[in-house]
Amino acid sequence: MKWLLCFLVGGIVSLVGFCNNLAVENVAGIKFVVTSNMMLAQRSVMAFVVFSVSNLTLTLFAALITAFVSSAAAGSGIPEVKAYLNGVDAPGIFSLKTLFVKIIGSISAVSSSLLVGKAGPMVHIGAGVASLLGQGGSKKYGLTSSWLRFFKNDRDRRDLITCGSAAGIAAAFRAPLGGLLFALEEMASWWRSALLWRAFFTTAIVAMILEALIEFCNSGKCGPFGKGGLIMFDVTSTEVSYHLLDVPPVLLLGVLGGLFGSLFNFLLNKVLQVYNVINEKYRGYKILLACSISIFTSCLLFGLPWLASCLPCPADAEEPCPTIGQSGNYKKFQCPPGHYNDLASLIFNTNDDAIRNLFSKGTDNEFQYSSILIFFGTCFFLGIFSYGIVSPTGLFIPVIVMGASYGRFIGMFVGSHSTLNHGLFAVLGAASFLGGTMRSTVSACVILLELTDDLLLLPLMMLVLLVLKTVADAFDSNIYDHLMKAKGFPYLEAHTEPFMRQLTVGDVVKGPLQLFHGIEKVGRVVQVLRTTTHNGFPVIDEPPLSESAVLYGLILRAHLIELLKKKAFLSYPMPTGIDVSEQFSVVDFAKKGSGNADRMEDIVVTKEEENMCLDLHPFTNTSPYTVVETMSLAKALILFRQVGLRHLLVIPKIHGRSPVVGILTRHDFMPENILSLHPALTSRWKRWRLTLPRWLNPF
Amino acid sequence: MKWLLCFLVGGIVSLVGFCNNLAVENVAGIKFVVTSNMMLAQRSVMAFVVFSVSNLTLTLFAALITAFVSSAAAGSGIPEVKAYLNGVDAPGIFSLKTLFVKIIGSISAVSSSLLVGKAGPMVHIGAGVASLLGQGGSKKYGLTSSWLRFFKNDRDRRDLITCGSAAGIAAAFRAPLGGLLFALEEMASWWRSALLWRAFFTTAIVAMILEALIEFCNSGKCGPFGKGGLIMFDVTSTEVSYHLLDVPPVLLLGVLGGLFGSLFNFLLNKVLQVYNVINEKYRGYKILLACSISIFTSCLLFGLPWLASCLPCPADAEEPCPTIGQSGNYKKFQCPPGHYNDLASLIFNTNDDAIRNLFSKGTDNEFQYSSILIFFGTCFFLGIFSYGIVSPTGLFIPVIVMGASYGRFIGMFVGSHSTLNHGLFAVLGAASFLGGTMRSTVSACVILLELTDDLLLLPLMMLVLLVLKTVADAFDSNIYDHLMKAKGFPYLEAHTEPFMRQLTVGDVVKGPLQLFHGIEKVGRVVQVLRTTTHNGFPVIDEPPLSESAVLYGLILRAHLIELLKKKAFLSYPMPTGIDVSEQFSVVDFAKKGSGNADRMEDIVVTKEEENMCLDLHPFTNTSPYTVVETMSLAKALILFRQVGLRHLLVIPKIHGRSPVVGILTRHDFMPENILSLHPALTSRWKRWRLTLPRWLNPF
Repeated sequence: MKWLLCFLVGGIVSLVGFCNNLAVENVAGIKFVVTSNMMLAQRSVMAFVVFSVSNLTLTLFAALITAFVSSAAAGSGIPEVKAYLNGVDAPGIFSLKTLFVKIIGSISAVSSSLLVGKAGPMVHIGAGVASLLGQGGSKKYGLTSSWLRFFKNDRDRRDLITCGSAAGIAAAFRAPLGGLLFALEEMASWWRSALLWRAFFTTAIVAMILEALIEFCNSGKCGPFGKGGLIMFDVTSTEVSYHLLDVPPVLLLGVLGGLFGSLFNFLLNKVLQVYNVINEKYRGYKILLACSISIFTSCLLFGLPWLASCLPCPADAEEPCPTIGQSGNYKKFQCPPGHYNDLASLIFNTNDDAIRNLFSKGTDNEFQYSSILIFFGTCFFLGIFSYGIVSPTGLFIPVIVMGASYGRFIGMFVGSHSTLNHGLFAVLGAASFLGGTMRSTVSACVILLELTDDLLLLPLMMLVLLVLKTVADAFDSNIYDHLMKAKGFPYLEAHTEPFMRQLTVGDVVKGPLQLFHGIEKVGRVVQVLRTTTHNGFPVIDEPPLSESAVLYGLILRAHLIELLKKKAFLSYPMPTGIDVSEQFSVVDFAKKGSGNADRMEDIVVTKEEENMCLDLHPFTNTSPYTVVETMSLAKALILFRQVGLRHLLVIPKIHGRSPVVGILTRHDFMPENILSLHPALTSRWKRWRLTLPRWLNPF
Repeated sequence: MKWLLCFLVGGIVSLVGFCNNLAVENVAGIKFVVTSNMMLAQRSVMAFVVFSVSNLTLTLFAALITAFVSSAAAGSGIPEVKAYLNGVDAPGIFSLKTLFVKIIGSISAVSSSLLVGKAGPMVHIGAGVASLLGQGGSKKYGLTSSWLRFFKNDRDRRDLITCGSAAGIAAAFRAPLGGLLFALEEMASWWRSALLWRAFFTTAIVAMILEALIEFCNSGKCGPFGKGGLIMFDVTSTEVSYHLLDVPPVLLLGVLGGLFGSLFNFLLNKVLQVYNVINEKYRGYKILLACSISIFTSCLLFGLPWLASCLPCPADAEEPCPTIGQSGNYKKFQCPPGHYNDLASLIFNTNDDAIRNLFSKGTDNEFQYSSILIFFGTCFFLGIFSYGIVSPTGLFIPVIVMGASYGRFIGMFVGSHSTLNHGLFAVLGAASFLGGTMRSTVSACVILLELTDDLLLLPLMMLVLLVLKTVADAFDSNIYDHLMKAKGFPYLEAHTEPFMRQLTVGDVVKGPLQLFHGIEKVGRVVQVLRTTTHNGFPVIDEPPLSESAVLYGLILRAHLIELLKKKAFLSYPMPTGIDVSEQFSVVDFAKKGSGNADRMEDIVVTKEEENMCLDLHPFTNTSPYTVVETMSLAKALILFRQVGLRHLLVIPKIHGRSPVVGILTRHDFMPENILSLHPALTSRWKRWRLTLPRWLNPF
């Protein structure tokens, strides 16, 4: 059953990824061919108008559907998925609507020549497909199927979504191992050996289906630009050899990657803060913002190549030069016959083609220093400003483009002093920038190795990643942590802060505690549910039901609402012999699909009913995890995080008082929350953080 | 600091791995050249005598040092390391003595032409190096260094040993990613994102150092056979292409891998049981067993090639044929000039060379069906009987040899119907058998991909692994689980058995519970420590020290012994104002290196002292993890496993009795133990297991 689901997830994600690539290739390809043809006919102004209007239309479409249909589809979606896998449920991220907007929006945003990627959205799409399959389709649109309802629990759904996100990366880059490691390193908060194998299965399915689809496309049935539909960079030099002389430039790349990556994260974060202010004001501003970025991008992409001088075509070029009509290494742009514009080859092109050009070997003299520099600057600038617009946007491809460009620059600079060709330098540069922004070193390495299909590059790439990780961690943390913090997700880190060791659980428990008795008045239940937003409540038994007051267990809000809905009330506050639970089937208490939970507002209880009672015993979880109030907070957090809890009950050390002292949730463990309760710690903590720079304590 | 240690681990392990390979290559190479030269001189009998006597000597040496110096070095060591990482401390596995025996013994066992591998011992060596570095050298031999003593706690040592085992695989196969994934999939029971990165760092160091050493050896300074010292198979065909027609034979390989793998596990298990009976009787029998296996192996290796007919050398051979003097594809053996013996090329050769020959491309017509079949049968047979002998033995290489041989056989059988060459079939076969025995599918796949440096093979290999995992899991579990069970390690599985959900923690708590008071008589402490073997004791406070009896915490045996050793006694059973803990430094309570723990027998306490008291309060862990006695056993196990505990205190639900009901350790959670306490469950459980075959529930 789980295999079948993984198979389906793999299959659907690979098909979506394939169609996505194909659509982008064809839409963008036609756009570039039309404008290039106009350039050939010397009608530059007309070409610019067509180029910018088509870009604007595509961007506008992406922004409109994102803003008005599903705003959860904006951005890359990786922070949301990562937070979900940590246990934070952001509203609507896995609905069918979001999935749909994400697919369509991603295609149009990427084809509109914005500097945004498709890999991030693919992760979200993969997770969304997995979530929908896991909950048996979308109830809202009647697309349910009953036989897929086996996964109504958190763990199975989380596992499936992990597999889905692995499949997303695998489909975006045709990198099954990279996808697996990305899901493992970056996405998942809990990991089991069985999950490794299941994620591997899913990415294997993706790889096999993509392989078959590429075979199919090679026969030319995928439209005029469908052949290279799946990015597969071609640096397969027969023999990669390198020696000690290559180490200094490679180290330099690592340092640069760390510096640029941190700078990029910092600037992106600042820009997103500004954007958030704009976006919150009014919907219209968002759209306006997206449109202005699009127009600005069009101007840059079209205008900058005029700055570059035309170069004569090399005599020994392996491809036709200048390339007419199709994407290729040597764009003609405004140049006379027999010449090409090297900047246009990079900038007036799809991002995939730009990466392919930068990674290509045997073209060591293709680019000028100035062109590469302009290209890098433009990309850095556009990358920072494009990510935050209201449409599905990814970061992977822009980051790879930037990294490849400065890698190539270093390669040209080192020139003949190195045995590596410039394409390999570009690959190493891409690895360094990818690692610098995302800090997912292992998966970045594997993804690029799979893209370039060259395992001999591994030691050099590892060297780059080691250096940059050291450099970059001295400045800040990875981009997804920034984004999650910006969105306010209470993400639970695996490590504990030092000050937590000085506190006990009792120090952070906040009152007043809402608890229920084993037999509780309906009126009280309704009142408590209406006035609080807690999701779990301790249930205690008091005399005469038990000898002394004891903790019976924990009951969930969702289950209480279900009880109220079914009106399984007792007339007297005494346990009857009748088993109330027979009125319910297992399905009633199954975890609802996201967005389908019953709400308190829909429950109507009459005055008479309010005086009746509810026997909570059959519906209470009698084995909740508990900690004694004197337990150190750090240890309680380890328990909470490792076991993956939502509620942790705190029991008193000495009896005589209530059998339960409090209840801890995720928010209680957030450092910000703890520090607000104990302001004295803040100054000490800050001092601690200042005296001990991050790079001294990187693990 | 941790980086430096990882760097040292990576460096030392790669050097050891390199020397290991070099020694094996040279010892075995000289042996084969000498015998081959005698064969050339028509002195076959003499050749056989030299061959078998040298093999016998080497085996005897390995067996003797293993039996008399460190018996913990026998076998591959992977089960021991895996159990250690799960929390089971087997005696002496990480001592310097064991490490030394493992290195020397592994070299001589592998060079003695036994069908044993060096990868398993390399994992143990890697873990041993990491452990010794982590505890700051070996105290016993005075090789300590104080600045390496920072890691006197379980978690850091475990992390470092995980990195060490990853480095072991990386050094054995020159497969950094494979090593990483192997440690992740097969070895580690707990995994953190930071550990992933640190293990990656370690394997990267290994890869880089090996790269440099190979560069060094290429200049010919590593002895006559040192060039190919590190196995690096050469199947880099320029273009791997395949289509649907190749799928059926690949599926067949998967099925075969599953079947053979399970059969191999089953037979190996049976043989090991017999061996255990022999080994337990008397040390001499062990040595005799090893010697007889060696003689038997020599006979087979030397005798069988005579059965094969001589083949004429192919005209278009890429290497000299027949190969004289050195290892190569075309062994001359007894054949006339211009002919070669294909079986001798496989069987009368080092395992590495046999694998290289099987994996080689462009040699599709080199082997006869009969030779491959004889080779496979011999290896299967020898592999089962060789593993259990008393010397360091690995399973990886034998398994790869067997898998490659039946893969090649299938390749020859399919012949021209497939576009894949026979070398690729051999690789797929190796993957299938590796997966079939070890079930470490993901890492098996990555290791072989790195060996063959061909990522395009990935989808096919994934297909093989999917099929075989399905087939093999229907029969039994992986070989390491078998081995750990045979050795009696209480390995804690990540999943819970269904019957655990029906039991509460209270059902498995065993009496009588030994507990201490906050102020305890020295005599009682000594008596309890002498009569029990528990490692942790609950400490309670009773009136008049507290209002009512409360649980104060948990104290460890090691700390009690330290207290007794320092004689920090009180004359009166009352807490004094003096802080006893000032007499101790942090180092006293640091985790001792393996084998260095103080023992109870060394403690001498006089009669007067026995009447004195100990204040345990300052030395008690006041935040032990606790569960209420009504907690479900399954949930308690999840807590125990996920947080990585050694002791779990059980507290009563209703007060009035003692504040602690019992203490749970690893052994209490073993299914065998629980079933022996509740025999009624056994029959039900067995029925459950029978009605639900494993393959229905493979995750």
